[in-house]
Amino acid sequence: MTEQVATLLVACPDRKGLVASLAQVLYGHGANILDSDQHSDPIASMFFQRLRFDLSSLTTDRVSLENGIREVGERFAMDWKLSYAERVRKIAVFASKQEHCLYDLLIRHRAGELACEIAMVISNHPDAEPIARHFGVPFHHVPVTAETKASAEAAAHELIAASGVELIVLARYMQILSSAFVAKYPSRIINIHHSFLPAFVGANPYRQAYEKGVKMIGATSHFVTADLDQGPIIEQATVRVSHRDSVDDLVRKGRDLEKRVLAQAVRNHLEDRILVYAGKTVVFD
Amino acid sequence: MTEQVATLLVACPDRKGLVASLAQVLYGHGANILDSDQHSDPIASMFFQRLRFDLSSLTTDRVSLENGIREVGERFAMDWKLSYAERVRKIAVFASKQEHCLYDLLIRHRAGELACEIAMVISNHPDAEPIARHFGVPFHHVPVTAETKASAEAAAHELIAASGVELIVLARYMQILSSAFVAKYPSRIINIHHSFLPAFVGANPYRQAYEKGVKMIGATSHFVTADLDQGPIIEQATVRVSHRDSVDDLVRKGRDLEKRVLAQAVRNHLEDRILVYAGKTVVFD
Amino acid sequence: MTEQVATLLVACPDRKGLVASLAQVLYGHGANILDSDQHSDPIASMFFQRLRFDLSSLTTDRVSLENGIREVGERFAMDWKLSYAERVRKIAVFASKQEHCLYDLLIRHRAGELACEIAMVISNHPDAEPIARHFGVPFHHVPVTAETKASAEAAAHELIAASGVELIVLARYMQILSSAFVAKYPSRIINIHHSFLPAFVGANPYRQAYEKGVKMIGATSHFVTADLDQGPIIEQATVRVSHRDSVDDLVRKGRDLEKRVLAQAVRNHLEDRILVYAGKTVVFD
Amino acid sequence: MTEQVATLLVACPDRKGLVASLAQVLYGHGANILDSDQHSDPIASMFFQRLRFDLSSLTTDRVSLENGIREVGERFAMDWKLSYAERVRKIAVFASKQEHCLYDLLIRHRAGELACEIAMVISNHPDAEPIARHFGVPFHHVPVTAETKASAEAAAHELIAASGVELIVLARYMQILSSAFVAKYPSRIINIHHSFLPAFVGANPYRQAYEKGVKMIGATSHFVTADLDQGPIIEQATVRVSHRDSVDDLVRKGRDLEKRVLAQAVRNHLEDRILVYAGKTVVFD
Repeated sequence: MTEQVATLLVACPDRKGLVASLAQVLYGHGANILDSDQHSDPIASMFFQRLRFDLSSLTTDRVSLENGIREVGERFAMDWKLSYAERVRKIAVFASKQEHCLYDLLIRHRAGELACEIAMVISNHPDAEPIARHFGVPFHHVPVTAETKASAEAAAHELIAASGVELIVLARYMQILSSAFVAKYPSRIINIHHSFLPAFVGANPYRQAYEKGVKMIGATSHFVTADLDQGPIIEQATVRVSHRDSVDDLVRKGRDLEKRVLAQAVRNHLEDRILVYAGKTVVFD
Repeated sequence: MTEQVATLLVACPDRKGLVASLAQVLYGHGANILDSDQHSDPIASMFFQRLRFDLSSLTTDRVSLENGIREVGERFAMDWKLSYAERVRKIAVFASKQEHCLYDLLIRHRAGELACEIAMVISNHPDAEPIARHFGVPFHHVPVTAETKASAEAAAHELIAASGVELIVLARYMQILSSAFVAKYPSRIINIHHSFLPAFVGANPYRQAYEKGVKMIGATSHFVTADLDQGPIIEQATVRVSHRDSVDDLVRKGRDLEKRVLAQAVRNHLEDRILVYAGKTVVFD
Repeated sequence: MTEQVATLLVACPDRKGLVASLAQVLYGHGANILDSDQHSDPIASMFFQRLRFDLSSLTTDRVSLENGIREVGERFAMDWKLSYAERVRKIAVFASKQEHCLYDLLIRHRAGELACEIAMVISNHPDAEPIARHFGVPFHHVPVTAETKASAEAAAHELIAASGVELIVLARYMQILSSAFVAKYPSRIINIHHSFLPAFVGANPYRQAYEKGVKMIGATSHFVTADLDQGPIIEQATVRVSHRDSVDDLVRKGRDLEKRVLAQAVRNHLEDRILVYAGKTVVFD
Repeated sequence: MTEQVATLLVACPDRKGLVASLAQVLYGHGANILDSDQHSDPIASMFFQRLRFDLSSLTTDRVSLENGIREVGERFAMDWKLSYAERVRKIAVFASKQEHCLYDLLIRHRAGELACEIAMVISNHPDAEPIARHFGVPFHHVPVTAETKASAEAAAHELIAASGVELIVLARYMQILSSAFVAKYPSRIINIHHSFLPAFVGANPYRQAYEKGVKMIGATSHFVTADLDQGPIIEQATVRVSHRDSVDDLVRKGRDLEKRVLAQAVRNHLEDRILVYAGKTVVFD
């Protein structure tokens, strides 16, 4: 559905009159606010807002509206981002041998849950090719070894840049991306980590959880930063486990969490619900 | 903490300019919006908003502000309600022999979770008197029999009216209130029902659940209307059960749900988060 | 992995000596008990047990062991069922246009979560054929109309009988099976109903839930009996919803529940964890 | 209810014939098994079992039965513990200024959820005295400073030893117990930590969680060992939080978790459901 709808995401120092000024500028151009959510962080003295509005009744045009928003934005020193619903975003999914998150994203996309185009699947293994093909998504096999890492990342970057992809989703991609690569996509790479972060950072979190004897396990989706598994957390979920569960059982139970938690993060991104600040996220629901 | 804060709850037919007009009137009087949440129901064409704002920087006075809101309210045919945080609300808790919800409310109140005065505990049994006394809350024993129901309700009503109580909380109160009594307190009586409504209406829901063999049980807090267990639902929660659980186990597990679900509903009411329409609720979180 | 492992499921009137007799017969033949779970229903005076044991150290042979179990079974009037892990069970999945549960079962099977052969997919629509083919599963298109229902069911029955299928899984199959068909497969047809039964029986449960204004929705897997949506419940799960969620949002959130709840029920069946009695289930976990 | 029921907890190296031998000895003395749960850890090659049985039909006497169990225990090198339901266990609750867990335990005890005698409340602050008195439980004020820690612990130990207390429950007790004190009560001190361990060890876990920006918080009950917050985990639970939640909100939401998670651990201990090995627990449910 290509609705005439836009979403405005705003972050700025908290000040009086912010809400009224933004509402006024939208109203002044005939835009009808459909949803509005805001958050003030009293410690950081920051203000965040998400406004979704209907453009079909615009009394001016988009350029005028954008100029109006820009003017308010400058007055209040806002970071702001305006997205039109009819522009279809492109995402790239990076996968390795584990296929459950990849399948999950493709099926949800097909069911209409993810408003985007899945422009490509990139994997360091060839296994996922038939899966991508089944869903009609271009597949690129980009093998990675310690020696070829830089060139592999360059190849991936080229594919992404050429196609206008704006979000990279690591669907249990088992390679650690270089700082240089990560730096190219600030708050634009979403990873799924198979633990309830900050517990069990790094390799084999299910084994770590098993050995610790925890009674719940979790999954965490987060933006990727240069620090491994330390980026801003977007979504988390947990499930009960018991002494009966082997490491394999934790892996199996965890898969269900990983799928939901990754898909929810991607969905939140595509609906412009996420703002990042101070190493954390605001996720408007 | 008697902050200089007010909350405005609004319900009206959806129209363009609503958000801007309300934001403008607050800004015009120097009120600083702290939180804002809104909801549009496209089917009912209704608009709902909750605005919480700081009055400490008011450039006019409260009377002017209220006049301003009234003027906007009339323009948009709003139902609106303005509450000042420093006015302490009074609630009455109705209890019977089961004491867990009563204890829970009293302890949460003491911990500062419920911003109100618990003006009285009314029970049809004398057992709860020492509990009320321990927490320094007045206790009234109002026995109820089939014959005395009308006079008992009249006595309760008198106690409530005399003390300025605005919310009645049925903390596992085991009497069915008459339609006449209920009609006096529209959306002002909150009940906890010990099932996941609409399943298991009426008596002995845990036994019903046991006999049906469900794998989860629930609890539901709702406003009381003339139809038994059919009032607008405010909050629900569920917990897993298994074939191992006897009816007594369901009762025990259910108590934990009932406490949380009732307290959450009361808290939501006290924070002006609930709007009722079309037999349902909007609960701003 | 075709382990030398067997599972014994037992139901009988509760009597002293049951546990010892079964343990003794297994020990006497050299079988090593790996897992044992039991349940006594004091109201029904019934005893239930699941025993999983290792056959690799058997000092006699399987026929002797079975004779030993049969002798104990007769002594205690047991219903019992012995399954060898190496015998691969066959299941048939019935689907309609909704594909999420079908995909989910196929992917879990491929990931090794479901120890069975998915012998066929039967659908009253042709849409699922490419999905079945992608996973290498035979597909049968069996259209159903009011007029052809009897012959369609006969065709399905023939396919099932010919292939030795022992469990039918209704993966959001949108046809109501006739009593005659259902009677052929007692406790052998598992359905997923998209509500928290017994709430919202019948058609459009998400719409019913939306109109009621519940704060959680659920999904229920159950054995199919002649009474619509009334068969013994195997598994249930719930998820929070709010006034923000449209019917479509409930459908989307519900899909996640349906997948997990149906797959868990199938898995429990395949691992011989379910016993049915008195319209309810014992599910050993 | 002082039923004629006993519970046997067993841990030993895994060997064939274990289950049959224990079942046989109980049957041989006329004990009727009510519940049985077992677990084999294939990595540690360990076997664990919990047997609950009815003594009312004993054909010998308890001494003979215990001798029979002892004989089997020696044959299989078992650690075993036999508890009779009619012996009322005594527990001591250690508290500080936070009263929610203390209240919760006392109320659950009064509701019959905890089969024990709460022999005393010990606190380093006098505040809890009226609470203990309300529930008719002896209260001891044992102040602790850096200088008096050793003598305070000695005083507590004396009170406990004199009264036959077998379990110490730290209900948000804000003092770190010395290694010497802890060593006196192996697997007999249960603590509640207000985080989802192993995340956020140490002080101010809610603040740590707030700063990390997690989307769920948790609580963990565990046995106390010499390593701070590292003892075997008994029970955990989590709840969703969001960017809207201040540290105070996390504290409030966390209280609900802490109460449930601590009470569940105490209940599991009192019902002889917990076995400790390899720094972890088996908790039979």
